[in-house]
Amino acid sequence: MDAHTALTALQERLAEIADVAKAAGVLGWDQRVTMPPGGGEARAEALATLGRIAHERFVDDETGRLLDACAPIEDEQPFDSDEASLVRVTRRDWEKARRVPADLRAEMTREAARGHQAWVEARRNSDFAAFLPYLRRNVDLKLRYIDCFEGFESPYDPLLDDYEPDMKASEVREVFDVLRPALTELVAAAPEVEAGFLHGEFPVTEQRAFAEEVLPTLGFEDGAMRLDPTVHPFCTSFSNRDVRLTTRYRGDDLESIWSTLHEAGHGLYAHGNDSALQRTPLYGAPSLGLNESQSRTWENLVGRQRPFWTFWYPRLQARFPSLGTVELDTFLRAINRAEPGLIRVDADETTYSLHIILRFELEQEIVGGRIRLEDLPEAWNARMKDFLGVDVPDDAHGVLQDVHWSGGGMGYFPTYALGNVISLQIWQRVREELPDVDDAIAAGDVSPLGEWLRERLYRHGRKYTPKEMLERVAGAPEIDPEPYLAYLRDKVEGLRAVAVA
Amino acid sequence: MDAHTALTALQERLAEIADVAKAAGVLGWDQRVTMPPGGGEARAEALATLGRIAHERFVDDETGRLLDACAPIEDEQPFDSDEASLVRVTRRDWEKARRVPADLRAEMTREAARGHQAWVEARRNSDFAAFLPYLRRNVDLKLRYIDCFEGFESPYDPLLDDYEPDMKASEVREVFDVLRPALTELVAAAPEVEAGFLHGEFPVTEQRAFAEEVLPTLGFEDGAMRLDPTVHPFCTSFSNRDVRLTTRYRGDDLESIWSTLHEAGHGLYAHGNDSALQRTPLYGAPSLGLNESQSRTWENLVGRQRPFWTFWYPRLQARFPSLGTVELDTFLRAINRAEPGLIRVDADETTYSLHIILRFELEQEIVGGRIRLEDLPEAWNARMKDFLGVDVPDDAHGVLQDVHWSGGGMGYFPTYALGNVISLQIWQRVREELPDVDDAIAAGDVSPLGEWLRERLYRHGRKYTPKEMLERVAGAPEIDPEPYLAYLRDKVEGLRAVAVA
Repeated sequence: MDAHTALTALQERLAEIADVAKAAGVLGWDQRVTMPPGGGEARAEALATLGRIAHERFVDDETGRLLDACAPIEDEQPFDSDEASLVRVTRRDWEKARRVPADLRAEMTREAARGHQAWVEARRNSDFAAFLPYLRRNVDLKLRYIDCFEGFESPYDPLLDDYEPDMKASEVREVFDVLRPALTELVAAAPEVEAGFLHGEFPVTEQRAFAEEVLPTLGFEDGAMRLDPTVHPFCTSFSNRDVRLTTRYRGDDLESIWSTLHEAGHGLYAHGNDSALQRTPLYGAPSLGLNESQSRTWENLVGRQRPFWTFWYPRLQARFPSLGTVELDTFLRAINRAEPGLIRVDADETTYSLHIILRFELEQEIVGGRIRLEDLPEAWNARMKDFLGVDVPDDAHGVLQDVHWSGGGMGYFPTYALGNVISLQIWQRVREELPDVDDAIAAGDVSPLGEWLRERLYRHGRKYTPKEMLERVAGAPEIDPEPYLAYLRDKVEGLRAVAVA
Repeated sequence: MDAHTALTALQERLAEIADVAKAAGVLGWDQRVTMPPGGGEARAEALATLGRIAHERFVDDETGRLLDACAPIEDEQPFDSDEASLVRVTRRDWEKARRVPADLRAEMTREAARGHQAWVEARRNSDFAAFLPYLRRNVDLKLRYIDCFEGFESPYDPLLDDYEPDMKASEVREVFDVLRPALTELVAAAPEVEAGFLHGEFPVTEQRAFAEEVLPTLGFEDGAMRLDPTVHPFCTSFSNRDVRLTTRYRGDDLESIWSTLHEAGHGLYAHGNDSALQRTPLYGAPSLGLNESQSRTWENLVGRQRPFWTFWYPRLQARFPSLGTVELDTFLRAINRAEPGLIRVDADETTYSLHIILRFELEQEIVGGRIRLEDLPEAWNARMKDFLGVDVPDDAHGVLQDVHWSGGGMGYFPTYALGNVISLQIWQRVREELPDVDDAIAAGDVSPLGEWLRERLYRHGRKYTPKEMLERVAGAPEIDPEPYLAYLRDKVEGLRAVAVA
């Protein structure tokens, strides 16, 4: 078979697999947004079947034969071309996917489902002991999963690689070793800020109307996106013109604004993917960290800054009369305050990454066998005191708060903090190249920013490795915590300046 | 392989196929209810892929080998058993599906999509000539499809068989030959009835609230169903505990009530399927006619009768003040009036089946080659005058009004009228066995009716052929138009009695 025939066959095969994966995505969205609860059992079966079909077709020997026959494409076509990238990225994915036996994969899926169910109950009762046996089985399976790989520096590396391809735990440690002391210091230095007006009566219908007013200005084409309420907000897409944002409205605060902007950031990434990457493994983002960098960009670097609110604050005040007497400056300080707390998902920008570093450290101890699982609550609580100075009252507000471990999702947490860090590396570049971006945003026009990000980052999908991508978009392949720390230092200094004045 | 091992393997295989088909169902529902329009292209590809995977897995030789190995099950197990039924029904499905070559099937799918697109445009412009070439290609493919079968009495039979298994065109003709003159006579005899109060301002939010008030009383378990608005209402289900109803609200009439009850009838059928039939080809209904009989039962035999409105009319009046001065009797007469019109989907109970008979006659002439396609508009209009005494002003209100032919869906229409007829055969039996059913419904309790239908009909899914099923539920295997005609005669007489009085 010549290389071009093989490429066509490979593309068809991958397109079919992408279709099945996309179908699973629709089923997952529906499950979390619209499905009547009675549908859960049948849905789990359908999702398992689709997952199995997509996986089997992908890891099949035939995929490997086609990849081999496609090898000349990589020499013939430029590195950046869709064709060479497809072959290169697919081979990496295929070689990785083949290493994990089907029954181990199936067992992991099963135990993840069981673990999740047990966790929901355990968290409700704040009963870590009840969750422990499920956690143990999931961790044991993770260790067997790690054994499928070889040549790694740390047993944590294969887990991390699922979310941050090619990144090593030691590289994350280097970044976090800089962050931890600096963040702890910042948190201690942050003044108390009055934010009581952010709690009160904020009718959900008005919050929804505000979200629907803001979203269309962010750069989504008409008819290519929708927003729905859900319990745990997420974003998914079934093509770059079918982007699904979700958010959570509470009647007594305004958090839905930033939850929506966060998911919109993920959504804009998907929306900006080149159409040519549809139905290929190149659709998406190179890593969760890069993807998260964009949710954080729109949530924080746009959505908590003066330019954005210069335009939007009067519109927000018009919807929520209680803000009528609150000055823009006061509002900005409140939404940028730093305040240690117990819960990761409620954490502000300054404290957030400390929650992550804690989890990263514990995860490494778990997979390294350096901590007994029954000692996790104690270790958690001690670190919370150490990092953030808070006392954990019970495990529901401590070690049981996150869903991730219940489904065996270890190696995922660091990507959140890396996203924060990367967002500032890219933002620095944005400010260099778009000196007037603040003025545009203050006039309600985010399109120069959106265009820049789409052109430099979003459209490339998964063509490049995370390091290649970071180098292209931010000028250097390495994750550098300094711009992020400088940003937070500015923030805290700003809060202090006003607090003192 | 022994029969029981084979049965397990067959069940697993069919469960996987059912999962893929169900996934396609979710994608279809999403497409019609929630999908942003930009997602259409990717969705079409995903649906085509899922359809192909499900079809290929089903028609595979391996399915046949397993069926052969399962043959002893049919002797060992009772005819009614889930196991024997599975083997029996699956063999029939498999043998039929195998007859149609994959490329003909693919071509039909493609031309159906093209035809549908052309039809939307042609109907908008009332331009039959623009639609004609697409119709011709779809009809040609239908003729090739018919050629895949043998031993039929009429070339219409293989088409009809897709929707009404084992039924022949000649059997439909026998029924329609009784209906047509009788219905024409009834329509002519029907008096004009004042119904102006059914048009006016009926806020959609109130209509929706009324639907959400009625639905839970119809027998759906909590958390097993949802209702959404859409353009062309339909019902689908992904398990008997995940039933999706859709309806259409217009702000100036109350038609959403009967549209909702209609889809609820389909939904109750799915909801009533035995849980053991999930993920097998036995899930569903034996024929479209039987399925439609139940949508008609809930829409008309429940939803247009005095007992139902004895309970619900005061509640409806409370929501819509303009009905406050309209007596229940006046309301009942209006919703039971018979009035010739141009559009099938807007037709009342008395005229509805005449629209169907017209289509059935034309379809037979088309597949029999007894009419030139370019002459269809003229033939349509002549028959509309003949059957219903109305003049068709343009093709948008005539031959172009329905979606079915645009996608090659010939043989489908008769099932609507058969549904009407069958609903009365079953209803007759209901009244014999549940003499107090009216009192219960008038007290707002439809559960005796729902239980009876579930026990006698719904729970059996596709276990039996349509005739076997009809015999079990209504006492005779043949479709008998007399109860339906008697019902309509009563209705028209009632209208006349008051009109005269």
